[in-house]
Amino acid sequence: MTTLIDRQTSGVYIIAATPFTDDGSVDFDSIDRLVDFYVEKGVDGMTILGMMGEADKLSAEERHAVLDRFMKRAGDLPVVVGVSDAGIANLACLTRAAMDMGAAGVMVAPTRGPAREDRVVGYFHQVCDAIGENVPVVFQDFPQATGVPVSARTIIELSRDRPQIVMLKHEDCPGLAKISAVRASQKDGYPRMSILCGNGALYLPQEMARGADGAMTGFAYPEALVGTVERFLAGRKDEAEDFFDAYLPILRHEQQPGFGLALRKTILMKRGAIASAATRAPGPRLSRTDWNELERLVARTERNLARLGL
Amino acid sequence: MTTLIDRQTSGVYIIAATPFTDDGSVDFDSIDRLVDFYVEKGVDGMTILGMMGEADKLSAEERHAVLDRFMKRAGDLPVVVGVSDAGIANLACLTRAAMDMGAAGVMVAPTRGPAREDRVVGYFHQVCDAIGENVPVVFQDFPQATGVPVSARTIIELSRDRPQIVMLKHEDCPGLAKISAVRASQKDGYPRMSILCGNGALYLPQEMARGADGAMTGFAYPEALVGTVERFLAGRKDEAEDFFDAYLPILRHEQQPGFGLALRKTILMKRGAIASAATRAPGPRLSRTDWNELERLVARTERNLARLGL
Amino acid sequence: MTTLIDRQTSGVYIIAATPFTDDGSVDFDSIDRLVDFYVEKGVDGMTILGMMGEADKLSAEERHAVLDRFMKRAGDLPVVVGVSDAGIANLACLTRAAMDMGAAGVMVAPTRGPAREDRVVGYFHQVCDAIGENVPVVFQDFPQATGVPVSARTIIELSRDRPQIVMLKHEDCPGLAKISAVRASQKDGYPRMSILCGNGALYLPQEMARGADGAMTGFAYPEALVGTVERFLAGRKDEAEDFFDAYLPILRHEQQPGFGLALRKTILMKRGAIASAATRAPGPRLSRTDWNELERLVARTERNLARLGL
Amino acid sequence: MTTLIDRQTSGVYIIAATPFTDDGSVDFDSIDRLVDFYVEKGVDGMTILGMMGEADKLSAEERHAVLDRFMKRAGDLPVVVGVSDAGIANLACLTRAAMDMGAAGVMVAPTRGPAREDRVVGYFHQVCDAIGENVPVVFQDFPQATGVPVSARTIIELSRDRPQIVMLKHEDCPGLAKISAVRASQKDGYPRMSILCGNGALYLPQEMARGADGAMTGFAYPEALVGTVERFLAGRKDEAEDFFDAYLPILRHEQQPGFGLALRKTILMKRGAIASAATRAPGPRLSRTDWNELERLVARTERNLARLGL
Repeated sequence: MTTLIDRQTSGVYIIAATPFTDDGSVDFDSIDRLVDFYVEKGVDGMTILGMMGEADKLSAEERHAVLDRFMKRAGDLPVVVGVSDAGIANLACLTRAAMDMGAAGVMVAPTRGPAREDRVVGYFHQVCDAIGENVPVVFQDFPQATGVPVSARTIIELSRDRPQIVMLKHEDCPGLAKISAVRASQKDGYPRMSILCGNGALYLPQEMARGADGAMTGFAYPEALVGTVERFLAGRKDEAEDFFDAYLPILRHEQQPGFGLALRKTILMKRGAIASAATRAPGPRLSRTDWNELERLVARTERNLARLGL
Repeated sequence: MTTLIDRQTSGVYIIAATPFTDDGSVDFDSIDRLVDFYVEKGVDGMTILGMMGEADKLSAEERHAVLDRFMKRAGDLPVVVGVSDAGIANLACLTRAAMDMGAAGVMVAPTRGPAREDRVVGYFHQVCDAIGENVPVVFQDFPQATGVPVSARTIIELSRDRPQIVMLKHEDCPGLAKISAVRASQKDGYPRMSILCGNGALYLPQEMARGADGAMTGFAYPEALVGTVERFLAGRKDEAEDFFDAYLPILRHEQQPGFGLALRKTILMKRGAIASAATRAPGPRLSRTDWNELERLVARTERNLARLGL
Repeated sequence: MTTLIDRQTSGVYIIAATPFTDDGSVDFDSIDRLVDFYVEKGVDGMTILGMMGEADKLSAEERHAVLDRFMKRAGDLPVVVGVSDAGIANLACLTRAAMDMGAAGVMVAPTRGPAREDRVVGYFHQVCDAIGENVPVVFQDFPQATGVPVSARTIIELSRDRPQIVMLKHEDCPGLAKISAVRASQKDGYPRMSILCGNGALYLPQEMARGADGAMTGFAYPEALVGTVERFLAGRKDEAEDFFDAYLPILRHEQQPGFGLALRKTILMKRGAIASAATRAPGPRLSRTDWNELERLVARTERNLARLGL
Repeated sequence: MTTLIDRQTSGVYIIAATPFTDDGSVDFDSIDRLVDFYVEKGVDGMTILGMMGEADKLSAEERHAVLDRFMKRAGDLPVVVGVSDAGIANLACLTRAAMDMGAAGVMVAPTRGPAREDRVVGYFHQVCDAIGENVPVVFQDFPQATGVPVSARTIIELSRDRPQIVMLKHEDCPGLAKISAVRASQKDGYPRMSILCGNGALYLPQEMARGADGAMTGFAYPEALVGTVERFLAGRKDEAEDFFDAYLPILRHEQQPGFGLALRKTILMKRGAIASAATRAPGPRLSRTDWNELERLVARTERNLARLGL
C-alpha cells in the first residue's frame, strides 16, 4: 500500500543523486547502495530525478529504468519523482509510470517562458488536468534555476484551487519571509501546505524556526539533515542548531550552484554510497585543487563532529 | 492651467530624445527645435526623461535643467516625465519638480530586484505614498528592459487600488493579449486605464485594434504615429494600416533594442530636429555601414510615401 | 550521396515545424505534406527538430521517428538536424542517428549555465569531441532563447579551432554589426563561415547586404525568404527588398517570441501544408481575436502581392 | 601623500554602509562613528559608495557630501570609491572628485546591456580613456548583480592592456576556479592582479587558500574578516579557518542577496557603529520575526567566540 505525501508531510526527503560509472553509463548497482545508504542515515523519503539527479541528461529509457530501480529498492520508503519537462505530455507520461510503480507524488517546477505569474498559474492548471487529481504535486519554487519568480500569494492560491498541490519545495533566496507568509496564510483560511526546504539547506535552522516541515535537498551527509530536523521537531532548537553548525562549513561548500553536484558525488563516493563520482557531460569535474580543498573540509567536519561527541 | 493625463487620455505621446552636442553636453537649443518639431508633426503630448531619453546618464542638475527647458517650450502641450530611479526619495523629488513646472503626470517602471509580483505591488504603493495621490502615474510595463515581468491582473488591481495609476505604457512582448486582457477587465468592474503603446510601435495597428488609446514611443517620424492613431480612432482601419506599413521597414529598423537610439537620433538630425546625433557614452554609435544602411531605408521610406501620394 | 553543409552554403534552410494532430500526437502524414510544400516553395534545405520544431516536447522515440520521416521524404534536399540537449551523450546519440540517415549537419546551441564565454568554448570543444570531426556543425547564436550571449570573437575563434563548425545561425539582436564582424574577420585570416539568419527574418535584407548567405528560419511563407535571398544573391537588391517588404507586416507579426509558433502553424494549415495548427502543451493557442487579427494580415499580404504583380 | 591601491594590495577593504537617520536623510555623524569603528576593528582600507552603500539612491549632491565626509574622517586609511554609473561622464566626474580628495582608486562594474564580453572590453577601454591612466581601477566582477558574466581571460587581458586595472573584486559564484585561473595566468606572463573577495565572504578561507589577497565586503563583524585574512597571510590556515567558522552562521545569514543589507545595518547599529539601521526606500526592512532571528544568531555568535576564548 503506497504512502502518498500530503499537507502534513514532514521530515527529510533526500534528493537522490543518479550514479554513473566512469564511462558515463547509469550505475544501477550504485543505485541500490545509495538507497541503502540513505535509509541507513534515517531519511523519511527520497526525491529522485530532480535537477541534481541530472534527469535532463538521461534518455527516456534510462529515466524509466532509473525510476524502476530506485522504486524497487526503496520499498516502503516514500519516493517523490521529479517530472518537470518542457512538454506536458512527457510530464504526464512519466507521472503515470511513477505513480504506477508506487511513487508518493511528483515534483513540478514552472517551465521557462515569460515569467508572468498568470502564466505560471495557467501552467499548473494544465499540469493538474493532465495528470489527474489523485496525484499529489510538489510545487518546486526555485527561481534561481528556472528563471521564473513566483509570489507567495500565487503559490497559496494555486494550492487552494488545486487541492492536489500539497507541498512547497521552497528554494527561493532570499526566501525566509516567504515561508512565514505561506504559514501565515493559514490564518486567512488557506489550506496548510507541507513545506520542505531545498537550496542545499543553507538556512535550514532558520527555515524550521519559521514553520518549515523539513528538508528536501541532497546534502551528502543526510544524517545532518535528519538530525537537525528531528531535534527541531522535538523542540530542541539550540541543540539542533549546534548540530547543524558542525556541518555548515562543508554544507556551504557543497551548496555552490551547479558546481556543488561534483562535490556532492565525490563525498558520496568517499563515503561508499556510490562507486564513482562521475557526472554526465557537460557536468562539473573536480580539479586537483578542488579535490584537496574538499578533503580538507571533510577532515574538518569530522573534527567538528568529534568535538560535539558525535 | 495644467492638463493632467487621465484614464481617457489618447493619441500620441512622443518619447523625446535628449539632444547632446558632439562633445556630449546637453544641447538646450536643440531641445527647443525638437519640441517645435514634435508639435509641428501633430503629437498630443510628450514624454521626457524616459529610458530612450538617456535620463540615467544625466547628472541631477542636468536632469532638472532639461526638464525645465522642455516644459517651458512645451507650453500647453501635456508632458509626462519619466521619474524612475533606484531610490524613492530621488523619484519623489523629481516628481515634485516636474509637477510644479506643470507636468501632466509621471512615468514609473518597477525597480530591479526579485521579479515577484507582490514586490512590484508593494513598490508601487510605496511610490504612490511618497508622491501623493494627486500625481497621475503611468505604469511602464517593459520587462525586456527592467527584468521584471508583470501579469495583467497585477496591473489592473494596482490601478484599481491606486486611482492615480491611470495609464499603462504597454511594451511587453509578446503583449497583444495583455492589451485585450486589460481592456476586458473593465467588464469585470475594474476601472478603465488609458493604454499607450511603446516598444517602438512595432505592432501599433494590432494594438489599436485591440483597444489601445494610442502610442507612447519615440519613432523619429512622429507623423507616422499620429497619422496611424488618428485614422484608427476615426474608424478608418485599413487606411491607417496602409499608412503605417509605408513606415514599417524603417520603424522595424529603428526598433532594434539599445542600438535603435543611435538610428533615431540620426534621423532626427537629418530631419533638422536636433543639431547632432550624439548619444552619451556608453551609447551606440553608427559605423559607416550602419549609416549607409540607414540612408537607404530613409530613401525607401520616402519612395513608399510618394507612392501613397503622401 | 549525402550533401553536407560547408563554409560556402547559401540559400534558404527552412526551419520545419513539427505537425501534430488536434489530440497532440505526431502527424506523420503532415510531415510528408510539409516537406513537399517546402520543396515546392523552392527552399535549399531544411532544419528540423529546432526550437520552433518543439523538439523538447517530443519523447526520444518520437524524435527519432520524426527525424526518420522527414529524412525519407526530403530525399536529396539537405537537412540540418537540431540536436541541442542538456546532456552531451543524448546530443551525440541523436547526431549519430541523424548522420546515419543522411543529414547534412547538426545544429547546436550553448547549454544553459553560467554565461561566461570560456564556458561556451569548453562546451563546444566537448561537443565536437563527442560527435567526431566529420559532422558539420551549425553554431546557433540565439541569446534571447538560451540566455547565453557570445561575442563575435568567440565564434570565429571556435570556428577556426574546430574546422567542422562551418556555419553560424545568426539570431542575436541587435545583431547586424555581428554579421559584419564575422565577415570582416576573414581579412584577418579567419576561415569563412557560412552565415544563415534566423530570428524570424525580421532584418533579412539588411543581413544579406552585410554578407549573410541566406536565411534559416521558419516563416510560413518560405517563398518570401527564397525570393528575397535569390534576388539578393543575384545582385537585384532593390527588387529583393520590395519583395520582402510586401511580406514584412505578417512576418513581423509571426516573429513574436514564443507566441509566433501558433501563428506560423495556423498559416501553414491555412495554406494546406499541415492538417492541424495544434502545438503541444504548454504551447501557445490562438484566441478568436488572435485568429481574426491573423486573417486580416493574411488578406492584406495577398493584396500587397497582387499590387506587386506576384 | 595619498596611498594608491596597486597590484600587490592585500588585506581587508571593508565595504562601508551609508548611514541614514530614521527619516531617511544621510546621517553624517554616523559616518564618523562608522569610520572609527572600522579603523578600530583593524581594516586596511575602505570601499565607499558601492552597491551595498546604496549609492544609487543618493542624489548627486549627497554622493559628493558623503564622499567628502568619509574621506575626511578616513585620514590616511586608503579609500576606494565605487563610481559605477549608467553614463561615463558621471562616472568620470565622480572619479575626479574622489581622486582630488585623496582616494586610493575607484571601483567599476560593467554596465547593463548585452552580456557579450567584447562589449565589456570596449566599455572598460572607454572608462579608462575617460578617467585617465593615473587612476587605479578595481574591476568588480559580480554577475549576480550586474547580469554580465565575464570570463577570467577577459579580465586578465583587460588588466594587461590597461595597466591601471590593478585589482579584481571577485564575487562571481561559483567562483573559486576563477581565482585559481587569474592567479595561474601569471605563469603565462600576465601581470599580477590584486584579488580581494566580496560576495559577503561566504568562501573566504577557500578564496585565500587559492591565492586571494584579502576581502572587500561589508560583513558587520569586520574583525572577523581581518582576523581571518591576517592569520591566512601569516600561514596559520587552520587557526584562520576555525576563527572564520565561528562567524560563519551569522555571516551566511547576512549574505542573503538584497535582504542582507538590512541585517548588516541592524548589527552595526547594535554594535554602536551607526545610530539607525534605516535603509533608503525601496530598501529591505526587518519584521519582528527577522529581528528575533537575528538576535538569536548574534547571541550564538558571541557564544561561539567565547568557546574559542576570543
